[in-house]
Amino acid sequence: MVNPGGLPGHGTQRQPILPPALLAGLPTPCLLVDLRAADRNISAAARLLRGTRVSLRPHFKAHKCTQLLRRQLQAEGCFGATCQTAGEAECLSEAGFPDILVANVIADQSSLAQLGRAAQSARITVAADCLAHVNLLQQAAAAADVTFDVLIELDVGLGRCGLPLGSPDLVPLAAMIGRAPRLTFRGIQAYAGHVVLREGRELRRTLSQQVELHVATELDRLTRAGLSCPVVTGGGTGTLQVLGESEVFTEAQAGSYVLLDAAYDQLGLPFEPALFCVTTVISCRERETAVIDAGLKALSADRGLPISVNDDARVLGLSDEHARLAIAADSNIAVGDKVILIPSHVDPTVNLHDMLHVFDGEQLARWPVDGRRVTRLRTQESRP
Amino acid sequence: MVNPGGLPGHGTQRQPILPPALLAGLPTPCLLVDLRAADRNISAAARLLRGTRVSLRPHFKAHKCTQLLRRQLQAEGCFGATCQTAGEAECLSEAGFPDILVANVIADQSSLAQLGRAAQSARITVAADCLAHVNLLQQAAAAADVTFDVLIELDVGLGRCGLPLGSPDLVPLAAMIGRAPRLTFRGIQAYAGHVVLREGRELRRTLSQQVELHVATELDRLTRAGLSCPVVTGGGTGTLQVLGESEVFTEAQAGSYVLLDAAYDQLGLPFEPALFCVTTVISCRERETAVIDAGLKALSADRGLPISVNDDARVLGLSDEHARLAIAADSNIAVGDKVILIPSHVDPTVNLHDMLHVFDGEQLARWPVDGRRVTRLRTQESRP
Repeated sequence: MVNPGGLPGHGTQRQPILPPALLAGLPTPCLLVDLRAADRNISAAARLLRGTRVSLRPHFKAHKCTQLLRRQLQAEGCFGATCQTAGEAECLSEAGFPDILVANVIADQSSLAQLGRAAQSARITVAADCLAHVNLLQQAAAAADVTFDVLIELDVGLGRCGLPLGSPDLVPLAAMIGRAPRLTFRGIQAYAGHVVLREGRELRRTLSQQVELHVATELDRLTRAGLSCPVVTGGGTGTLQVLGESEVFTEAQAGSYVLLDAAYDQLGLPFEPALFCVTTVISCRERETAVIDAGLKALSADRGLPISVNDDARVLGLSDEHARLAIAADSNIAVGDKVILIPSHVDPTVNLHDMLHVFDGEQLARWPVDGRRVTRLRTQESRP
Repeated sequence: MVNPGGLPGHGTQRQPILPPALLAGLPTPCLLVDLRAADRNISAAARLLRGTRVSLRPHFKAHKCTQLLRRQLQAEGCFGATCQTAGEAECLSEAGFPDILVANVIADQSSLAQLGRAAQSARITVAADCLAHVNLLQQAAAAADVTFDVLIELDVGLGRCGLPLGSPDLVPLAAMIGRAPRLTFRGIQAYAGHVVLREGRELRRTLSQQVELHVATELDRLTRAGLSCPVVTGGGTGTLQVLGESEVFTEAQAGSYVLLDAAYDQLGLPFEPALFCVTTVISCRERETAVIDAGLKALSADRGLPISVNDDARVLGLSDEHARLAIAADSNIAVGDKVILIPSHVDPTVNLHDMLHVFDGEQLARWPVDGRRVTRLRTQESRP
């Protein structure tokens, strides 16, 4: 957990995230990555899966930054990449990542065309949950003269996409994928998104074990029908600890662990916040409140308010371009001061920015959020 | 109000926003502007202020698209532009807009430098609520060899920035602005953001009249001290109807009226939704639910869920990249179909996109959201 009211530090040592002179020069609001903290998170994730049958396939959707993903893939036990959209898959393929899982079903024509382009230089695995997907994927693969590996997505409790458990469609759908000339049936995607943020490690373990039992039953149906399932993928940052114990899953598709956020930081995971939003105090005309220059256009609030790392400030609410802070009565916070926040939810927060300011303890670099959809659209725009 | 479950039309005539062939070709999720509806909104706003002493200074923050702002400024009674950030001011200045109000206080060094650059080719008016702002603005103006017009921001009930009503600092602060070599005191900003979305025109009128009485009292204090206040600016889309009756305000800084959104559409204003998010159905394995490919990375939810314009679909919830829909039992919605949504809040929704697809009834064009902060940062990045 974040030291309440303290600067995040490692162990008992408190250290500022960025030297004051560098902090003062940042254009606000902006995102800052503490690369030392991110590296500690990368190592901690590798330790969780060491000696298990589960490989870590880091999820790109969390930060959409290929430079950061490359750093994650250098860790022991990591292979391949996970992403959520066809645009992200195309970005990863263009950036030279050879093995990409699109952990989602895809149905619109422009996304299917992106998948086809991605598959021209990378192995693309994608999910399906109905016959329409099989047809669309087969057509897209033929149009691009490529092949796709396909997983059947199961709904193991999230209530979004995926076949319901026990569906009579499971075996016929897998067989149909197996027969499609340009598709290869590879197994199961079972993302327990309803479990990853539940409080209490034992609750997460119990719920994960229930999911695993369901997945084992479905796998059994497939293998009895003669259909091989080398890949079973799922899990997330909140269930990485328990996924290592799995006898069913082969891959963990966690993403948030590298940057974390205030929501995940409540769970007592072996990870620490590595992403911060740097803001400036623009008004403090009352003794116990101040206003900063970051709001909903710089920070998401779907998982609660961001947390201030400054001792004497607490976020009270966000409007479009402002946040109101409660400040301690004895605070000396003044107009022009910087206030550093921990976002409550990494994914939609990073999606608001095109750039991460990355500090490795010595140098401050700028890494593009190059997998953002809007970034990519514009890039395509400017192609000759 | 949006015809519940119907395609938005004008009057009794229902018309599709975009011909099916063009709709099918859009990459989803994307934003679509019905320019005919936007033009009707532009005319309706001009009618509201016709014959009054109040000019409309359209607010750029809502859509951050200079092409759309230019269209707004062609309407009768419109002059100047309002924006919320220094980055937007610099964008507008570079795009040739000569008269720009930054309806906000500014305190960080990079933003102050942007204001200075903007003032090299445009008249810049900006708000202040304390001595620190006066000093920072004076320094920034000197550094850029420019001048700024300055308004004192009053907090008329929003509880964000601004001097409290009756503050003993008001007259001294105005006098100090008047004495600063590069600043000119021009009047008052009184944005009643707490009123603009209240339901009921009479309630909005009553609350606006209270605000007006407070502003009149403050103006009286300033004029009795010999300080002239030619500018009194405030209001928003929800109070545009009543601002025309004002004897105090000189400018309305409304922005949402041109595109509207589902939240404002509840108020019975003489405007109609002109912004839509086009999505694709990616999964519908259950009879009465479907999943589309747009979530919190394409749509804001801070003012509620987006509203479907399709007869047979209703948004149930958003996750990062998905929305779940309830669909009518007799619906024939299928994987690959398009679903069109009205965003609940324009400003943070447009902020998620770099491009508006704009349909004028015949042609489909793409207009860049060129005032977005991240867009501008990258542009600066690529300068030699």
